Amino acid sequence: MVRRTGRRPGNPATREAILDAARATFGQRGFDGSTIRAIASAAGVDPALVHHYFGSKDQLFLAAMQAPVDPRELLPTVLAGDRAGLGERLVRTFLSIWDSPAGTAGIALLRSAVSNEWTARLLRDFLTTQVLRRILDHLDVDPAELPLRGSLVASQLIGLAMMRHVVRLEPIASAAPDVLVAAIAPTVQRYLTGPLPDR
Amino acid sequence: MVRRTGRRPGNPATREAILDAARATFGQRGFDGSTIRAIASAAGVDPALVHHYFGSKDQLFLAAMQAPVDPRELLPTVLAGDRAGLGERLVRTFLSIWDSPAGTAGIALLRSAVSNEWTARLLRDFLTTQVLRRILDHLDVDPAELPLRGSLVASQLIGLAMMRHVVRLEPIASAAPDVLVAAIAPTVQRYLTGPLPDR
Repeated sequence: MVRRTGRRPGNPATREAILDAARATFGQRGFDGSTIRAIASAAGVDPALVHHYFGSKDQLFLAAMQAPVDPRELLPTVLAGDRAGLGERLVRTFLSIWDSPAGTAGIALLRSAVSNEWTARLLRDFLTTQVLRRILDHLDVDPAELPLRGSLVASQLIGLAMMRHVVRLEPIASAAPDVLVAAIAPTVQRYLTGPLPDR
Repeated sequence: MVRRTGRRPGNPATREAILDAARATFGQRGFDGSTIRAIASAAGVDPALVHHYFGSKDQLFLAAMQAPVDPRELLPTVLAGDRAGLGERLVRTFLSIWDSPAGTAGIALLRSAVSNEWTARLLRDFLTTQVLRRILDHLDVDPAELPLRGSLVASQLIGLAMMRHVVRLEPIASAAPDVLVAAIAPTVQRYLTGPLPDR
């Protein structure tokens, strides 16, 4: 018999109440403005129970938005290696997630973000706090430029996911990942490390 | 008293019946596979009446998908001028449409395309037949490369619209158009005229 490892799932109704409170709180106040304490209070439970069920605020956020992957598990692959190959590794990793079963959850998230302001805020915070900030922290670039660099990268990658998986425009919809990596990696690399316009 | 010019709007019920039939036909068969005759037949009217109300198949398509602008009116601005400035003119024109009142209709179209397979097909056909094909026809590049070039451009521009107007990720959401043009035009220029990966 396989023994489940990791955190205990806990009472399903309590768990759902916490997730509902987390979605509402993150949606209203954003990731940075939300605390485990406020979410616990909104759910009518003790903060220790939230930590017990979900772990950190990062983990609760990923659970609340039903993120199909935890970026912290994938980012080491992207960040390992030379700076000049960062764009290529990021595009390749991004495509491999979206082309996997996890991509279905990504599409659901994109659909929801497009039709719902709160989900759009969750997606925005997910990109900013869970993905882009972590990548850009590793780069030796002007901190004042990080938000623009990050949102430019997001614009190209979300547009790629839209065209490949939602609008399904050919040949992007069925191109081999290598073709898309070769075409799009230079764009992402430039947004990450290339010169930016003066503002 | 102002006299209306242009085509007569016709009987509103008949007009709506034709638009419904056009959406269904374009959604099922795509733009290239649809004829005025088939749409008229689906609406139970004479093809001459469809031409009378809407003009060409292009114009009927734009009316059916409630396109806020007719690309044929804007493309001359994009195509006029030197080849090296094409990316810049395309990004600038794209931003000016999305930042105008017409952008609201664009966002509605994007929302609908994300949640509805038929609307996704309409958007795909709109991009392909009304925008990208017309731009790429003016470029002296290998015709076999045109679909990939076109869909790469679409991925960046739709991603830009998503981040600026739907997800509203800062600083893209409120950046001056000049900043975005300077950052993104080189990407679009490379997709249009730069070297592409072998497939």
